[in-house]
Amino acid sequence: MKVLALDSSGLVASAALVEDDILLAEYTTNDKKTHSQTLLPMLDEIVKMLNLDLHTVDLLAVAAGPGSFTGLRIGAATVKGLGYALGCPVAAVPTVDALAWNLYGANALVCPMMDARRSQVYTGLYHFRKENEPGSGYKMETVLPQCALSVEELAEMLNERGEEVIFLGDGVTVYRQKLQQLLTCPYSFAPAACNRQRAAAVADIGLLMAKEGKLESADDFTLDYLRMSQAERERKEKQEASKGVSV
Amino acid sequence: MKVLALDSSGLVASAALVEDDILLAEYTTNDKKTHSQTLLPMLDEIVKMLNLDLHTVDLLAVAAGPGSFTGLRIGAATVKGLGYALGCPVAAVPTVDALAWNLYGANALVCPMMDARRSQVYTGLYHFRKENEPGSGYKMETVLPQCALSVEELAEMLNERGEEVIFLGDGVTVYRQKLQQLLTCPYSFAPAACNRQRAAAVADIGLLMAKEGKLESADDFTLDYLRMSQAERERKEKQEASKGVSV
Repeated sequence: MKVLALDSSGLVASAALVEDDILLAEYTTNDKKTHSQTLLPMLDEIVKMLNLDLHTVDLLAVAAGPGSFTGLRIGAATVKGLGYALGCPVAAVPTVDALAWNLYGANALVCPMMDARRSQVYTGLYHFRKENEPGSGYKMETVLPQCALSVEELAEMLNERGEEVIFLGDGVTVYRQKLQQLLTCPYSFAPAACNRQRAAAVADIGLLMAKEGKLESADDFTLDYLRMSQAERERKEKQEASKGVSV
Repeated sequence: MKVLALDSSGLVASAALVEDDILLAEYTTNDKKTHSQTLLPMLDEIVKMLNLDLHTVDLLAVAAGPGSFTGLRIGAATVKGLGYALGCPVAAVPTVDALAWNLYGANALVCPMMDARRSQVYTGLYHFRKENEPGSGYKMETVLPQCALSVEELAEMLNERGEEVIFLGDGVTVYRQKLQQLLTCPYSFAPAACNRQRAAAVADIGLLMAKEGKLESADDFTLDYLRMSQAERERKEKQEASKGVSV
């Protein structure tokens, strides 16, 4: 099964093509340009380099939130367009799950952290557990499903568990010092090769979702923002205020 | 420190730019084209996408063997050219070490396998061990340094150790069934996102080598083929035969 995967949930833009257990191409940038300038040209570059006939793609996988609202919408619009044109199903991959997949097989609790602004991170907690059958790989188990938390709340939760943790994601850059102050459990930070979004991880999880029948049509596919957008929040605050309710 | 990394040791061609603990760009393809058609165009694509001034690069890192002789030479020629032009030092990263880095933090023995033809694989064995200081990451320890072995020899060694193993690399595609027949220890195979060469891993190890002062000039840099080339082997066989020595 050939999967075309995109992740534009954060500062990183990433496109990948995976066929079963082989990565055919991946292109990732982490730059100042907006995803509207990078994502489709990157995909086009891969298509040309591989002489890829897009009609041979069986599945589209996309980081479906949380993340940057604009980034997510650019990814979603691209996938909806491709899905309509190619008649492909869509795997809506939870962004934080895909980030955690970067530490496949890790010997610790995996904690992705994306900077969510407003003193919060999009985060989650994951364990990799070897499956018992001979030759079968690791299953990623969700200990805490993706959510928006303050770093203080996250650190308290981790200190209570006391397990070793590996952090990754752009939230680390923002909250590294705060984590160092707050944490009493053993912890470390993932290196450059595996600490940011990768479309190859989105593709792998998309393939697992396909096996479990968790696919949607391009039409039905929606994003999971986890929080309200700034515009929605401000409108709600105004409405509540006009009713005399403090929020 | 800004590192430009290349890996053209196998079927995969990969180029990456890493600055300290952040991956700025990575472009990887696994296609029928030869590296002479892909590697420099891929690097050029990254340079253009990031508006990168190559003179800001501090270090060149390259997969320095073992691997495909032609592939390695294309990578080496590229790095030597860039090194002369930019006055950059070179980190000659052992190919199998860089492959193992894909499973950073893994809870098992990591065993990369590259198809070396002639019934052998280029392989090695690695462990990740958490360092003790708070916040410090994992150190990759070499259990068996990279070498050329038959799959039978490798399986015997792994069965004697009895530890759990994760395999990766293009050798898995060739020898998966044989491994399933031979192995008595617990084992599994890494998924698409982390089972082939990545220049980002070469960059990470290059940065570690820079910290340890293990750099060379572009002039001094040489490849480590591990075995003789076919032409060298055949010449040696002819010479030995003419001396009446069987080889």
